[in-house]
Amino acid sequence: MSHQLLKGKRGIIFGALNADSIAWKVAERAYEEGATFTLTNTAVALRMGDTPKLAEQCHTEVIAADATNVDDLQNLFQKSIEILGGKIDFILHSIGMSPNVRKGRHYSDLDYQMLEKTLDVSAISFHKVLQTARKLDAINEWGSVVALSYVAAQRTFYGYNDMADAKALLESIGRSFGYIYGRERNVRINTISQSPTITTAGSGVKGFDRLLDFAERMSPLGNATADECADYCITLFSDLTRKVTMQNLYHDGGFSSMGMSLRALAQYEKGLNCDCDCDPAQADDHLFD
Amino acid sequence: MSHQLLKGKRGIIFGALNADSIAWKVAERAYEEGATFTLTNTAVALRMGDTPKLAEQCHTEVIAADATNVDDLQNLFQKSIEILGGKIDFILHSIGMSPNVRKGRHYSDLDYQMLEKTLDVSAISFHKVLQTARKLDAINEWGSVVALSYVAAQRTFYGYNDMADAKALLESIGRSFGYIYGRERNVRINTISQSPTITTAGSGVKGFDRLLDFAERMSPLGNATADECADYCITLFSDLTRKVTMQNLYHDGGFSSMGMSLRALAQYEKGLNCDCDCDPAQADDHLFD
Amino acid sequence: MSHQLLKGKRGIIFGALNADSIAWKVAERAYEEGATFTLTNTAVALRMGDTPKLAEQCHTEVIAADATNVDDLQNLFQKSIEILGGKIDFILHSIGMSPNVRKGRHYSDLDYQMLEKTLDVSAISFHKVLQTARKLDAINEWGSVVALSYVAAQRTFYGYNDMADAKALLESIGRSFGYIYGRERNVRINTISQSPTITTAGSGVKGFDRLLDFAERMSPLGNATADECADYCITLFSDLTRKVTMQNLYHDGGFSSMGMSLRALAQYEKGLNCDCDCDPAQADDHLFD
Amino acid sequence: MSHQLLKGKRGIIFGALNADSIAWKVAERAYEEGATFTLTNTAVALRMGDTPKLAEQCHTEVIAADATNVDDLQNLFQKSIEILGGKIDFILHSIGMSPNVRKGRHYSDLDYQMLEKTLDVSAISFHKVLQTARKLDAINEWGSVVALSYVAAQRTFYGYNDMADAKALLESIGRSFGYIYGRERNVRINTISQSPTITTAGSGVKGFDRLLDFAERMSPLGNATADECADYCITLFSDLTRKVTMQNLYHDGGFSSMGMSLRALAQYEKGLNCDCDCDPAQADDHLFD
Repeated sequence: MSHQLLKGKRGIIFGALNADSIAWKVAERAYEEGATFTLTNTAVALRMGDTPKLAEQCHTEVIAADATNVDDLQNLFQKSIEILGGKIDFILHSIGMSPNVRKGRHYSDLDYQMLEKTLDVSAISFHKVLQTARKLDAINEWGSVVALSYVAAQRTFYGYNDMADAKALLESIGRSFGYIYGRERNVRINTISQSPTITTAGSGVKGFDRLLDFAERMSPLGNATADECADYCITLFSDLTRKVTMQNLYHDGGFSSMGMSLRALAQYEKGLNCDCDCDPAQADDHLFD
Repeated sequence: MSHQLLKGKRGIIFGALNADSIAWKVAERAYEEGATFTLTNTAVALRMGDTPKLAEQCHTEVIAADATNVDDLQNLFQKSIEILGGKIDFILHSIGMSPNVRKGRHYSDLDYQMLEKTLDVSAISFHKVLQTARKLDAINEWGSVVALSYVAAQRTFYGYNDMADAKALLESIGRSFGYIYGRERNVRINTISQSPTITTAGSGVKGFDRLLDFAERMSPLGNATADECADYCITLFSDLTRKVTMQNLYHDGGFSSMGMSLRALAQYEKGLNCDCDCDPAQADDHLFD
Repeated sequence: MSHQLLKGKRGIIFGALNADSIAWKVAERAYEEGATFTLTNTAVALRMGDTPKLAEQCHTEVIAADATNVDDLQNLFQKSIEILGGKIDFILHSIGMSPNVRKGRHYSDLDYQMLEKTLDVSAISFHKVLQTARKLDAINEWGSVVALSYVAAQRTFYGYNDMADAKALLESIGRSFGYIYGRERNVRINTISQSPTITTAGSGVKGFDRLLDFAERMSPLGNATADECADYCITLFSDLTRKVTMQNLYHDGGFSSMGMSLRALAQYEKGLNCDCDCDPAQADDHLFD
Repeated sequence: MSHQLLKGKRGIIFGALNADSIAWKVAERAYEEGATFTLTNTAVALRMGDTPKLAEQCHTEVIAADATNVDDLQNLFQKSIEILGGKIDFILHSIGMSPNVRKGRHYSDLDYQMLEKTLDVSAISFHKVLQTARKLDAINEWGSVVALSYVAAQRTFYGYNDMADAKALLESIGRSFGYIYGRERNVRINTISQSPTITTAGSGVKGFDRLLDFAERMSPLGNATADECADYCITLFSDLTRKVTMQNLYHDGGFSSMGMSLRALAQYEKGLNCDCDCDPAQADDHLFD
């Protein structure tokens, strides 16, 4: 149902690869709420994914841009302003990738060039987006910028690897730039710390399905879906949240505030009491990280 | 402008004393967004304040209730359901009072009966509201409950006294009950940590105007107003934030994420360099806590 | 091995019931490190426990005191100063009790008089200790006060009930009074957030052994023992930590910074894959809270 | 006064440039407490600073190493083990540098190659130290690793620039590696979040003296000195803190838990009331960031 919460607002959405992407859902909902926006992704992602289909659906255009490349970002902002007919009101940064995770390199055996890449793509790109926008004065007063994060920035999750560090850096950039852009132009910058979500990006993490089950049982409301995340983004882009800035906002069904739930503990206890031949050593082995 | 975000939703709003109250603004905005709700306050507050005027404005009724009294709360829920024609979808808890602050008792000279009162009125009342609601099964699935808090729950502010401890307790109750009510009925419970706000309640705190100025200069977006807080509450009562629970959400223009801003430091430095006869000892004296 | 870290220091230790108590271990270690101190507990606890034996071992005296009773606390400080021959340098507050937990009352069915008792015994007693000490000027400059807490103050643990709220209040009192006592007398006040520990107090919590196992597997270093906690307390009482104040310090083998460990996940997965007849419904049932 | 807390322990200390360095004080105290260790710094820093003098004083050797260079680190560990006659028990990482700060580049006009350098030197170097150590199995069971951080990792401080992001990354690396190294070898890894300290490194930050004054007045115990930080490090290297890991530990006289102190507010108010010609515009100007 539409409330026309973003009526008249212009945006840029990074990272809508396919219908599983959170950014995809955000685009659909933003469209529904009356916003106009451009879509962007790397050239490679555009070849692999379905972004043009989404653009058609939302009556908009796709602009290829590598978010680690400042020239690309300048072009993106200039073209977007041209296409949308005015400065930008909201931005979604939904970008993350770790070559170390992809190549199966353990956190204690990182390749440092890959780490540099992880940080550049998943975190520094956020700074580049903001710095480019500010230099071009591309964002309207009271604009709203959101990047997607994960609770691994605060607590260590087996298998999340150097993406945890990238998310910590991402959130810090949100705070640091939130101060500058807030005091100067009243632009607010926040990160959403989302439940583990089945997307093309998320599925690369080891033991992801088990983690998903654990998070589901730990969270009183269950895991937050991509659709629900899109709803939440809409509120943050709307004028109803103008004084929320420099925050990391958990959208996770309560997971982040749980120490141990009954449902997870019952499942856990089942493992303790299990007499059948689901060999724990074997479990250790195939999970090994 | 209305988005009909709360169309068809029923609520209960605690603590709307007069037009300065945050709860007053929330009522006005909730009304505008299509909600129906009852208003409640203690009998004393109802005599002192303008709540009936607000009720008229919002075409609703006032039900007297002492939020520390479980019988009163039972009556409140039962009457509200009757008046509104169905179970409750949202609740605002905006209640806080410290006899120690009122009587000017220093934090190192607390009267313990007064402390008990502070905690009962400002924090335990929140548990009583929730426990009563749950026993009566008075809140609909996916209902949303919000209580107002302050950053003094995390960091010590000169003069905030035992209200800091009350807010810490309040936030903990929000988490603890959020788990129970979430897993059973998908009801979400959050606290909003609001900027210092000029209300009848807030004005009792010593050095409040100076604190307000400091917070204003520290916050990149300036202090959040009561009106803006009302907007934020609307998003939390709406269906767009269904998976946000057990959180303490800062609505403060960025204050909570600031260590030191240029504007506050410049003002501060002016004090360091000041040669005029605005005697610091004197300042110390009249601020003394 | 002794390092004489507390040589010449005088202390008061609350809550040493028997050889399982953390406070007991702290007393033994403080004695070893050259401190002199008095021991205190309620009259009831003194009858039930072995405190006199510990007093003998440490060549000191036991002074009965109900930590919720200001007169008792005054007497305790005065007698302690007399016995020890000077003002106090360190205090351990290791007190916690919930009648709601004892009586098996669920968090959504709290008895409010019992809740008041929980808060008074487990949290407000800390304020009473500090306020009484300050009024008597009973603590030396650079003295150190520690209270024991648990991570349930930040995250909700099934079964921990109103003790979670008490710990949140306790930690807030530590901060609030830490400011006052710090600026005036350079006394530092901290809480230690300790791993779940098998003590007479801890064993009352439902599902405690399962929680212990989960925490053990989640913590990279395993759960911290009472002995290790005593060691940590020694460092906080020593002159080597003079500028640490108003902190909640996790002493938990890393648990508080973990989201999911391999060891816990493997155990958890075993539960997921288990085909034997360890009925989850049954597990739910006997764990039910 | 020595307690022989580190008797028989072997360490490596990074970052002792001159007598103002925190690392210098740590070396002096570690020596006093019975430890043996090597000192290390970059070749450039060794030419600029007085490290050889410190080495002489502590009867040890200096090994040149660029902490961003894995080969150098391998050599450092191998030589240190050789010189000290066994594996390492403790490491201090006290390294930080931002070319953006040095060159006066504003946070909204960062040079990205410089940012990469900031992160590599100030944060990733910590991962390189740990990864190299683990590959060589260079650290003994129950070893302790500490890196120095600053509260800017959590809250934004005017002028701290990209060092804030570097510290956030540093702390995340501490947690992430703390899990791995803890579960495998019981090695603990923590960061100390130290008060602003007058060192050669710290003095580069704009408005540093004003920040120091503000922090001093905000902190109930005043700022923590380099000497006091050294004392605190000793406790973390000792066997008394074996179960503390993956933590960021504030050593700051209480600053991190303060919202507003009376002393800072009085000074601030003086600025508000000042009628003399200490022009705020001018203040703004020379502080401008």
